[in-house]
Amino acid sequence: MDKILKGLPVSRKIYARIKEQIAREKLNPKLVIIFVGNDPAADYYVKMLEKKSKKIGILAETIKLGSAVTQTDFLQILSKLNNDEAVNGIMIQKPLPAQIDETMINNFINPQKDVDAFHPLNLGKMLLNEDAFIPCTPAAVLEMLKFYEITTNGKNVVILGRSNVVGKPLANLLLRKDETGNATVTICHSRTKNLKKITQNADILIAAIGRPEFVSQEMINEGVIIIDVGVNQIVTDKDTTAYVGDVNYDDCLNKSSFITPVPGGVGTVTTAKLLQNVVKAVEFQKM
Amino acid sequence: MDKILKGLPVSRKIYARIKEQIAREKLNPKLVIIFVGNDPAADYYVKMLEKKSKKIGILAETIKLGSAVTQTDFLQILSKLNNDEAVNGIMIQKPLPAQIDETMINNFINPQKDVDAFHPLNLGKMLLNEDAFIPCTPAAVLEMLKFYEITTNGKNVVILGRSNVVGKPLANLLLRKDETGNATVTICHSRTKNLKKITQNADILIAAIGRPEFVSQEMINEGVIIIDVGVNQIVTDKDTTAYVGDVNYDDCLNKSSFITPVPGGVGTVTTAKLLQNVVKAVEFQKM
Repeated sequence: MDKILKGLPVSRKIYARIKEQIAREKLNPKLVIIFVGNDPAADYYVKMLEKKSKKIGILAETIKLGSAVTQTDFLQILSKLNNDEAVNGIMIQKPLPAQIDETMINNFINPQKDVDAFHPLNLGKMLLNEDAFIPCTPAAVLEMLKFYEITTNGKNVVILGRSNVVGKPLANLLLRKDETGNATVTICHSRTKNLKKITQNADILIAAIGRPEFVSQEMINEGVIIIDVGVNQIVTDKDTTAYVGDVNYDDCLNKSSFITPVPGGVGTVTTAKLLQNVVKAVEFQKM
Repeated sequence: MDKILKGLPVSRKIYARIKEQIAREKLNPKLVIIFVGNDPAADYYVKMLEKKSKKIGILAETIKLGSAVTQTDFLQILSKLNNDEAVNGIMIQKPLPAQIDETMINNFINPQKDVDAFHPLNLGKMLLNEDAFIPCTPAAVLEMLKFYEITTNGKNVVILGRSNVVGKPLANLLLRKDETGNATVTICHSRTKNLKKITQNADILIAAIGRPEFVSQEMINEGVIIIDVGVNQIVTDKDTTAYVGDVNYDDCLNKSSFITPVPGGVGTVTTAKLLQNVVKAVEFQKM
């Protein structure tokens, strides 16, 4: 096995599985994306998502809203989608403008259509190990581990970052009593003291802090497995923009036993997990 | 300050605060306890809870159900309480008989009356740091830390146990960006390897595994702060029953800088946090 854990073979497998299921069960899954404003990166992502969806048999529709949309109008649109039986999944593309209260939106979305798993009911069910949507990035990390047959049982897993969308849910998932769980989990963040001492003790290091190339060779132990969740836009020496992870890849490559690249690593799988949640939504709504 | 962190001064302060609030705001909080069967320990606890409630101005009513109660009947009773405006808090005394599906019950209780915070919506909101009920034992641990001015900021907190009611919620709470948060949190459990190496590195060790006197002197570092959440019934040499924690108290007393006793430690505060949640329920239902 190559030491570089690429996302593509993992996402391909997921897409094939979804496509096959949709065809076999004659499903008509529909995803609605709400896209506010005109952020170019977000626009690029939404278009890619529409294309991917079409390829595997999911109908993706994007509702574009002006960046001045009011909270009331936003909730009205969301309410309609919540109640529209033809809509299985709803995804709200971030960032949202300042006048939109993100917490209120996350609480308002129909939990059965919440393919991003930002609704507290879904996060609570995840914590309790009940059947629910799982946030896409943590789910992608687990999918990577599973695909590359990296066991977590009894391993020291160190997570850098305590966000609601990655660090915290991931910690809870890695504690489950299942094949991608049973890990001893340590969560570090900006307040952590002696960080190096902790990261050097990791069997698996998962970086999700949003700081470009933060993890360097001195911080890791020989043979560590590195999962890099970060995607940071930087300006290169040649004045072009590029994306790098939270890990200094070149610096850590030799010392690690396995490492995910950025781009081409976890991010690739995240989108696949999102679309898998759309099919899951169809199942939830049948119950 | 004494090195023994007793629960009584902490719970007294909470009870005084609740009593004062109830009187000042002229509240009539009502707690309904559902008690199935006739487990003597549970019966003892329920009676104590009724007495405590009365003392501070909470009306506590217990509904006793036979141990053969069906799931349907249970849900019907719960549904009535869910919709009864005079009922602010509902507490379901454990253990429940085998025919009752605990997960279904926890999902069915009105989240606004869920004073034990077992409903996934409350746990999800806790994870997201939204205003919600917090499970009573983790809340009691934080209350102990606060009362005794033990800071968690940047400290290595090691939690033994990954249960849904203590370990997992507590880990999430200790990661919050507040005065009882900002800790570096490690969660250990039965699958953890080199446990001693991890516990020896703890600034604060929280034991919640339900194994009598599991933590011994060799496992801890000089000066560690020990919070013992365990309550285990044992048979003594003299053939009487006694309650001990997850920590070998006598063995660890000298080496630790602070330690909570069992009984008389965290458990005392847990009940106070439950009753505080009843008052919180009144506030939630006013919104």
